[in-house]
Amino acid sequence: MIDVCLLGTGGMMPLPYRWLTSMMARYNGSSILIDCGEGTQIAMRQKGWSSKPIDVILITHFHADHISGLPGLLLSMGNSEKTTPLKIIGPKGLTKVVSSLRIIAPELPFKVECYELSEREETIEMDGYRIKAFRVNHNILCYGYSLEIDRAGKFDVDAAKALGIELKYWSKLQKGETIEADGKIYTPDMVMGPQRKGIKVTYCTDSRPTDAIVENATDSDLFICEGMYGDPDELTKAKDKKHMTFFEAAEIAVKANVQRLWLTHYSPSLNYPHEYLGAVKKIFEFAETAKDGKSIELVFEGETPTGEEES
Amino acid sequence: MIDVCLLGTGGMMPLPYRWLTSMMARYNGSSILIDCGEGTQIAMRQKGWSSKPIDVILITHFHADHISGLPGLLLSMGNSEKTTPLKIIGPKGLTKVVSSLRIIAPELPFKVECYELSEREETIEMDGYRIKAFRVNHNILCYGYSLEIDRAGKFDVDAAKALGIELKYWSKLQKGETIEADGKIYTPDMVMGPQRKGIKVTYCTDSRPTDAIVENATDSDLFICEGMYGDPDELTKAKDKKHMTFFEAAEIAVKANVQRLWLTHYSPSLNYPHEYLGAVKKIFEFAETAKDGKSIELVFEGETPTGEEES
Repeated sequence: MIDVCLLGTGGMMPLPYRWLTSMMARYNGSSILIDCGEGTQIAMRQKGWSSKPIDVILITHFHADHISGLPGLLLSMGNSEKTTPLKIIGPKGLTKVVSSLRIIAPELPFKVECYELSEREETIEMDGYRIKAFRVNHNILCYGYSLEIDRAGKFDVDAAKALGIELKYWSKLQKGETIEADGKIYTPDMVMGPQRKGIKVTYCTDSRPTDAIVENATDSDLFICEGMYGDPDELTKAKDKKHMTFFEAAEIAVKANVQRLWLTHYSPSLNYPHEYLGAVKKIFEFAETAKDGKSIELVFEGETPTGEEES
Repeated sequence: MIDVCLLGTGGMMPLPYRWLTSMMARYNGSSILIDCGEGTQIAMRQKGWSSKPIDVILITHFHADHISGLPGLLLSMGNSEKTTPLKIIGPKGLTKVVSSLRIIAPELPFKVECYELSEREETIEMDGYRIKAFRVNHNILCYGYSLEIDRAGKFDVDAAKALGIELKYWSKLQKGETIEADGKIYTPDMVMGPQRKGIKVTYCTDSRPTDAIVENATDSDLFICEGMYGDPDELTKAKDKKHMTFFEAAEIAVKANVQRLWLTHYSPSLNYPHEYLGAVKKIFEFAETAKDGKSIELVFEGETPTGEEES
């Protein structure tokens, strides 16, 4: 189970009543943040989510609306007495950008480790989930990110019993460990069914549509994608500024076969994103024009959400 | 006439419904900003005041809650097509801090000039007003600021007539120019009465009470002063963290003989500043616990405010 919140939905500049685009996820006691523009820490507080458990921050690119809130957030995390290390992942140049911004946040009670992406696509294994970074197409170096949580196959009780494996070893086998007992070796594949569908969330802003986005978003439970412009007539502007229209994002959602699409990163001049939703839904039925603080609890197939985080 | 707005009233970190402490003033077509924490540009937009006419930003000190909003504001000013130069004034080290923060705002359509204060007190003449910077007592180098608008004496029509000065020269003399006409020299002092009371606004945060604050705030029409703590029992904490209680700020207001005091820079744990106002008013009757966006139109004695900006 993972809680995902789109803290803000604005692009370019923060507005009263529209925070800058940023996503937060809570999984297994730790939290992950993607992008941190001016005001992100306020949006987080408004949502009621704590910054203290954040152990990874992913930065898509170094335009101010995606990173200007970083020093303030780091200080607030310090004030909350966080002491565990924080990893920041982002494009080449990250270490320099973070250290420059930290001129106003030089002392923190926790360690900050920067990891610079160097390939077009990279996979980073975390504690219980996987981050996939993929290069997108903006006017500066920019990455999208997928978070993936695997789900092991079903434990085959009959097979375990037939093999005579003692009960005390079952959970270890479920966790993927190999067991040696009574002179025999038991491997997980002997008692586990085929891997089941996990959970996948993909976040992409700022970019023109690309094949890499489609590939990396494929089969996502939730695809959060920029839609700088609602009006299809603004396609030329979108191409020029290396952004997308709602309709382009919806086409990616179709190709990638995602469960649901949340549009975000609206232009400051786009006052009523939902006015275009009817037309967008003709392309992809499960599109939504997200609002600040929209959240969802994603669970494995067949499990029941607690219902606490859907909003 | 000068419009003054206290854009935010928070200290340490921005909160939902409480922006960080920052003051903006509009005078004679140009605007001045003091401090720029995270979210200041949003507070400004919420108030409906434009960032474009800002030609001076004064920074009290380099704690993040007073400067973290600078790169975002600069970019928004750029997006509003500002092309006239911007002066930023602040403590020693300003140039380095501003250039570090500008790693995410490198290209602007206007020139940014940094001026570093080097003395305990400095006076900077601007176009029609005067900025006085004075060192205060915080845990890092920090300055308070006064804005002063002079008011010339009254034009003595009888004296001008008696001297036989032609009508076309009167306004020049009023503006302080010396006139040579018909072989005679006329100086302003020949037709102008003694200088009248001008307008003065003083802004001070973060600091312990000092004599310099009292001296520089003396006779201010408006004294905006930090009050990190409302509860007088938090005096030890205030001393320790180099801040003030409401009561200490009120004592400065009394000594400095100011017209009105607006308290600001509240601790994030101070939810209801006005609860202490009754007790504070026993020290200084014209104290107010300011709220975000509080504004006033200050006019010369005898003039009538338009009533547009009092809130």
